Amino acid sequence: MAVKVPSLKLASGYDMPLVGFGIWKVPRETCAEQVYNAIKLGYRYIDGAWDYTNSKEAGEGVRRAIDEGIVKREDLFITTKLWNNYHKREHALEMAKLELEAWGLDYLDLFLIHFPISLQFIPFEEIRWPCFWTDKEQTKVTPLAKVPISETWKALEEMVKTPENPNGFVRSIGVSNFQSQLVTDVLSYAKIPLSVLQIEHHPYLTQPELIKMAQENNIAVTGYSSFGPQSFLELGNKNAVNAKSLFEVDVVKSIAEKHGKTPGQVLLRWNTQRNVIVIPKSNSVDRLKQNLESVTFDLTDEEVKQISALNQGLRFNEPADFGFRIFA
Amino acid sequence: MAVKVPSLKLASGYDMPLVGFGIWKVPRETCAEQVYNAIKLGYRYIDGAWDYTNSKEAGEGVRRAIDEGIVKREDLFITTKLWNNYHKREHALEMAKLELEAWGLDYLDLFLIHFPISLQFIPFEEIRWPCFWTDKEQTKVTPLAKVPISETWKALEEMVKTPENPNGFVRSIGVSNFQSQLVTDVLSYAKIPLSVLQIEHHPYLTQPELIKMAQENNIAVTGYSSFGPQSFLELGNKNAVNAKSLFEVDVVKSIAEKHGKTPGQVLLRWNTQRNVIVIPKSNSVDRLKQNLESVTFDLTDEEVKQISALNQGLRFNEPADFGFRIFA
Repeated sequence: MAVKVPSLKLASGYDMPLVGFGIWKVPRETCAEQVYNAIKLGYRYIDGAWDYTNSKEAGEGVRRAIDEGIVKREDLFITTKLWNNYHKREHALEMAKLELEAWGLDYLDLFLIHFPISLQFIPFEEIRWPCFWTDKEQTKVTPLAKVPISETWKALEEMVKTPENPNGFVRSIGVSNFQSQLVTDVLSYAKIPLSVLQIEHHPYLTQPELIKMAQENNIAVTGYSSFGPQSFLELGNKNAVNAKSLFEVDVVKSIAEKHGKTPGQVLLRWNTQRNVIVIPKSNSVDRLKQNLESVTFDLTDEEVKQISALNQGLRFNEPADFGFRIFA
Repeated sequence: MAVKVPSLKLASGYDMPLVGFGIWKVPRETCAEQVYNAIKLGYRYIDGAWDYTNSKEAGEGVRRAIDEGIVKREDLFITTKLWNNYHKREHALEMAKLELEAWGLDYLDLFLIHFPISLQFIPFEEIRWPCFWTDKEQTKVTPLAKVPISETWKALEEMVKTPENPNGFVRSIGVSNFQSQLVTDVLSYAKIPLSVLQIEHHPYLTQPELIKMAQENNIAVTGYSSFGPQSFLELGNKNAVNAKSLFEVDVVKSIAEKHGKTPGQVLLRWNTQRNVIVIPKSNSVDRLKQNLESVTFDLTDEEVKQISALNQGLRFNEPADFGFRIFA
């Protein structure tokens, strides 16, 4: 039987599930199948991005699940993100429409600015996939482009479907990897609510003040990389290679044993009990199921605190590696 | 003989001395005399702010030094800052003019946005001095006001004297307590260079990436509270009370002894050798002199590194104490 995942009510008025399937690093070859499997298991929220280069395949999985009658479109919560090269109004609108097309849907549930940094435009025909921080050979960093966040935010507002904007194709909008000062600035001019802030969040990087600030402003927080170093090992990330696996940390292990759960489930529950949405990736169906079932038990307040105490301010997703010092 | 303090060339084209006299917490009663003394000793840069509530007295000291022929106006570098209640365009312009009037000068050298946070306006007649984060009794936090930083920045640009804006009364503009993301955003729309970033900076809070980011963008960095906890003890600041005095830290003490300097001079030189401007306060003429003389010796690279290694990410000037989580 499918697990019933609780939802958060967003500032936009829509509901967002507390557990989603994050498809960063899900290979294109298996993405459609895995998204389909996730939905069959009970996942309703799929977290994608232009940058993950698998939206088309994810969309195939989504549409298969709908076609087979497993879910209706309105049961699902589909998120994607604006990549750094497309911060200018017209590029943001074009990229968002290309995403909508890639997913093969009528609307997107959530659209986020992926990073608070604007890089030079790369024409869509020239390089459909991929487009990262550097050129393909990782020898040349993409230059900055001067696009105010307010321009990009206003483009997102134009995407939102409202009675005044019936051509809109997005339900909720938000940002990712923003710090408090820039969130505050967006809040000062936003005409449509900033519903979600997605940030790196795990016991080695807890950012309690940023989460408090967001939640005080009715912004739902999604934490990515809930397993900490785990997600970054395959990228050869130095911080990740040098960090102890969170699955092997005594506090996490002993709490997991006490509850008869896996360390991964404990790490996810540590998030969702504090109303932090999680989007674990898995390429295995078993672990997809385990991750979803993380909502079926409760940690004690003391256990939550013990896990939070592992904080080291240790960030793995760090664009400063390419010279973009955005978390300073 | 007066010490000759080196200068940095700002993005605006003007020169800014590497050592200034910061008048935060200099009592109004002694401020005119102490500013006058500072200039007599060789200080050319005075760092004030609306929030310090002593601009009028500082101006008296400045004008006395000019009147006595010790310096000419153009030899001096006068800085003041926009307080949080005056971020709206018309309020920013009015507050800046009131500051100019309080100093009794024709122009200001540098005008900074003091904090990246806009609080509700307090009419100028109602509360000329002071106006802080809370009401006078510190029982009620001042509510936020929705003013985009771009509006405030544009007001600062209007203050700058240029051939097109002959009524301008400010030479250079900048920001204080901004993090990298918001600095980047200002850079995306600034028409007049962002010349200076002023931040808390001492061996317990080194922020190397923020300084690198600023200096890479031709933004001069001024560090405040160079002596760390020292400045905050009189405010009863908890972090400061619990921290070891930087004057008592072995690394600092032994480097000071080796050079025959005071720990305070070592802390200042650790800044200026890395092109970080300092603005130490002192209510004693002897220490004013010592602070200025900190530029007359050099630390080795190894000593600079040893001091930098004291970093703990420990912030003393933390508006989160009033619920404003701006450094998250």
